Amino acid sequence: MNDIRGRFRVGVIGGSRAGREALLAAERIGRLVAEREGIIVCGGLGGVMEAACRGAREAGGLAIGILPGNDPADANAFVDVPLATGLGYTRNSLVALNADVLIAVDGEYGTLSEIAFGIIYGKTVIGLGTWAVKGVVPVGTPEEAVELAFKR
Amino acid sequence: MNDIRGRFRVGVIGGSRAGREALLAAERIGRLVAEREGIIVCGGLGGVMEAACRGAREAGGLAIGILPGNDPADANAFVDVPLATGLGYTRNSLVALNADVLIAVDGEYGTLSEIAFGIIYGKTVIGLGTWAVKGVVPVGTPEEAVELAFKR
Amino acid sequence: MNDIRGRFRVGVIGGSRAGREALLAAERIGRLVAEREGIIVCGGLGGVMEAACRGAREAGGLAIGILPGNDPADANAFVDVPLATGLGYTRNSLVALNADVLIAVDGEYGTLSEIAFGIIYGKTVIGLGTWAVKGVVPVGTPEEAVELAFKR
Amino acid sequence: MNDIRGRFRVGVIGGSRAGREALLAAERIGRLVAEREGIIVCGGLGGVMEAACRGAREAGGLAIGILPGNDPADANAFVDVPLATGLGYTRNSLVALNADVLIAVDGEYGTLSEIAFGIIYGKTVIGLGTWAVKGVVPVGTPEEAVELAFKR
Repeated sequence: MNDIRGRFRVGVIGGSRAGREALLAAERIGRLVAEREGIIVCGGLGGVMEAACRGAREAGGLAIGILPGNDPADANAFVDVPLATGLGYTRNSLVALNADVLIAVDGEYGTLSEIAFGIIYGKTVIGLGTWAVKGVVPVGTPEEAVELAFKR
Repeated sequence: MNDIRGRFRVGVIGGSRAGREALLAAERIGRLVAEREGIIVCGGLGGVMEAACRGAREAGGLAIGILPGNDPADANAFVDVPLATGLGYTRNSLVALNADVLIAVDGEYGTLSEIAFGIIYGKTVIGLGTWAVKGVVPVGTPEEAVELAFKR
Repeated sequence: MNDIRGRFRVGVIGGSRAGREALLAAERIGRLVAEREGIIVCGGLGGVMEAACRGAREAGGLAIGILPGNDPADANAFVDVPLATGLGYTRNSLVALNADVLIAVDGEYGTLSEIAFGIIYGKTVIGLGTWAVKGVVPVGTPEEAVELAFKR
Repeated sequence: MNDIRGRFRVGVIGGSRAGREALLAAERIGRLVAEREGIIVCGGLGGVMEAACRGAREAGGLAIGILPGNDPADANAFVDVPLATGLGYTRNSLVALNADVLIAVDGEYGTLSEIAFGIIYGKTVIGLGTWAVKGVVPVGTPEEAVELAFKR
């Protein structure tokens, strides 16, 4: 268990509502990250976050969920380490802070705030079908995203 | 003094470093907001924030600065009500929360995060030479920006 | 208006529910602080907070309310500068951060957390009928509390 | 790995500097919690926090550290899941939020704030040689503390 500390952390950010394609991509990313012994960090709720956690779970990996509310039990069923912050959307900053690299999948304004914080904190931000923001590295597939993430 | 409570609050967001044109625009916005009895809300530091506060001060107005650090004294010289948060960049969310409407002038990633939070919190976000983000209402001059802000 | 920045800030902390004696004391403190040109800083809600703000208002003073919720309109009617944090009880730390000195009146566990943060941040904490915590300077009357506060 | 989610979380709070007796007690608590499959939640730094994490590690357990700074690497060597908050002392609230029950060992004002937040959030707070605050359940030994914690 004590090898959790040293593992590479990939933040997966994206909307709590998302289309089928984005969900499949997020789940694939979760699985690929877990296969490389990485940990998923996310906002802990539904949609893209849940899909990434589910993917990690399927591959025997681990997911951390940094939640807006006061109750760790709010996390989706595939979060292994739920963290309640009680900060509301303000917690988006903490998601970015706790990832070594970020992959944005689809997403709306919450995701945009996390992209911005990621760049502020000096993290590489990789984008798959998300906001076209200067500084985000666009990729075409989950495989490319994860490949690039682990190069950092 | 007791009429402070009811006044309209205009958040001015933008970089702590900015070019001459952006600084002049921010100062003009501060002045125009103050002339209409509005209050400036900003991040309390330099650059666009300081210029907006200076403009408000010149017109006899009032500026609130929501600071990243622990010390209210960190605020620029034209902030009337400095608020220390100790939250670092995470305080960007609070700037958006405390404005009735936001005007973004120039700006980098901190500004982008504030634009995103503004839209999340349902505020109108007006943009002057800033990020071209869906949902931001672009304007061409400080006058247009303030005119539009007070229509909300 | 521009003289707001330099004024001494007295944090008044205490429960949102309180007995008649505590409310009268808080109102008296608000009035005395305002008479000395000080500003009240508080949590912005009811009970002791509201009483202190009402006292300040009666004496033509100014009160800042640092709120747990997302809406500045949640503040009691006597707050001049409401600040929404969206942080819930976690905002208690910010109340302590923004006062030059703290006066605790009555109060329960929220007040206890603010006393603790006050001491952590190196502020003098004066107590009137509140928690008997090492480091809190106990006084017997509002007059003594305010007298002592302005000595700091 | 996926059984992490359901495990009981014991918050161990106490000073980053502590005497030998307090450190031994915290280490013993960490060990006992781990033996019962519980997870340690703490502030992630030195002193009592580190001792509790070390105890958990020795017994093959798991520790979560909720840090004041921006860098997960700030955590002591025995934290398995470091979480950076960038909130400074304000993060004390989050330590209380993420524990099912709290055990305070020794400690100064940071600990006092966590005791207060624990009670605000409705958690049982058990005290071993710590602040004598109404609402804290005093115990005499690490064994008693952990026994009582798991009864909640």
